[in-house]
Amino acid sequence: MSVGRTALGSRSDVLEVESVLVWRIGPTVAEGDWKLLRSEEVATYHIFRIRHDRYRLQTSGAERDFVVLVCPDWVNVVPLTADGQVVLVRQYRHGIRRPTLEIPGGMVDAGESPEEAAVRELREETGYVPAQLKRLGRVTPNPAILDNLCYSFLAEACRLEAPPQPEPMERIEVVLRPLEEIPSLIEDESISNSMVINAFAFLGLVPRRGR
Amino acid sequence: MSVGRTALGSRSDVLEVESVLVWRIGPTVAEGDWKLLRSEEVATYHIFRIRHDRYRLQTSGAERDFVVLVCPDWVNVVPLTADGQVVLVRQYRHGIRRPTLEIPGGMVDAGESPEEAAVRELREETGYVPAQLKRLGRVTPNPAILDNLCYSFLAEACRLEAPPQPEPMERIEVVLRPLEEIPSLIEDESISNSMVINAFAFLGLVPRRGR
Repeated sequence: MSVGRTALGSRSDVLEVESVLVWRIGPTVAEGDWKLLRSEEVATYHIFRIRHDRYRLQTSGAERDFVVLVCPDWVNVVPLTADGQVVLVRQYRHGIRRPTLEIPGGMVDAGESPEEAAVRELREETGYVPAQLKRLGRVTPNPAILDNLCYSFLAEACRLEAPPQPEPMERIEVVLRPLEEIPSLIEDESISNSMVINAFAFLGLVPRRGR
Repeated sequence: MSVGRTALGSRSDVLEVESVLVWRIGPTVAEGDWKLLRSEEVATYHIFRIRHDRYRLQTSGAERDFVVLVCPDWVNVVPLTADGQVVLVRQYRHGIRRPTLEIPGGMVDAGESPEEAAVRELREETGYVPAQLKRLGRVTPNPAILDNLCYSFLAEACRLEAPPQPEPMERIEVVLRPLEEIPSLIEDESISNSMVINAFAFLGLVPRRGR
């Protein structure tokens, strides 16, 4: 693939001038140079563990630790009622110390499929049960520091079956909003969770900006 | 707002039957019941710190710790060249232990605005400099466990000015792809980072699914 070389920078050994690859930094590409030397879990918290991975750059011999949060996969689900309402949850989020408006979601338990986790979280947090579930997509929440995936689903023809069954110390409000209001709730940042916005993006509900 | 009561469940004290609020779990709403008792940083890693926040539920008196990752704000930037190419970066991501295709991004340094961080990260990782920068939006990467925001930008009329200046142990490839290819790169999961998909969602480039 290399069609040209440059001495513009000391660490820039190859300049590719065709349309795909512009720069390659270092003598080997990103994916080939890292050798995992060892991996150790150093701490456990409620919902993740901390892992230290020691890598060596094979080309230079230099070594470095990377910190990874070991988490179960996550799911979230856009629950739609037969009359076009989205079932949203409102709760205090301790990361940002204020309440958020989100769709139901949570961790995939051991032995569970993402689909099963989505239906369970929907039922636990809202009391709604879907007639039909479709997978919308999956993302890596932050591949630099998290090892997990987040799966998004659309739950159609949801109906209220029973009271929610939150964890003993969860405090959740269940709020219905028309599907057509979702773009404006994203626009005014009432809905701000990255992965919730992903789910709505797969449904074409994120308002366009910038161009 | 309460227009009805139910005895369906022991923890469901109020059933709201009008269109907005369906359930309220517990005698007070999500945002009013949590009282922060104390907050303590318990560990420091390369790119985040771990904080324990102790809360009391005012209605029940029960207490609980929440674990929060204290991070600087993050930025990412969709860099567009004058001829409609997106400047992407490819690197090994240690969270998922494989390379990813992403847009440039990183942490907002102390004293920096998000705009300054976006331009700096773009220049450091790719060597490109924009003629114009527009803010697309901001999200909470995970408000349950992270305390920070991620800002997304569109950088227009980017031109290659100099070699990239990555950190000594960064290994980055810079890849140009036509803007029209972005939806298919998201569709086939070549692009999977949640916050990168957010940025492309604000530009209307996430393919619709599910409906």
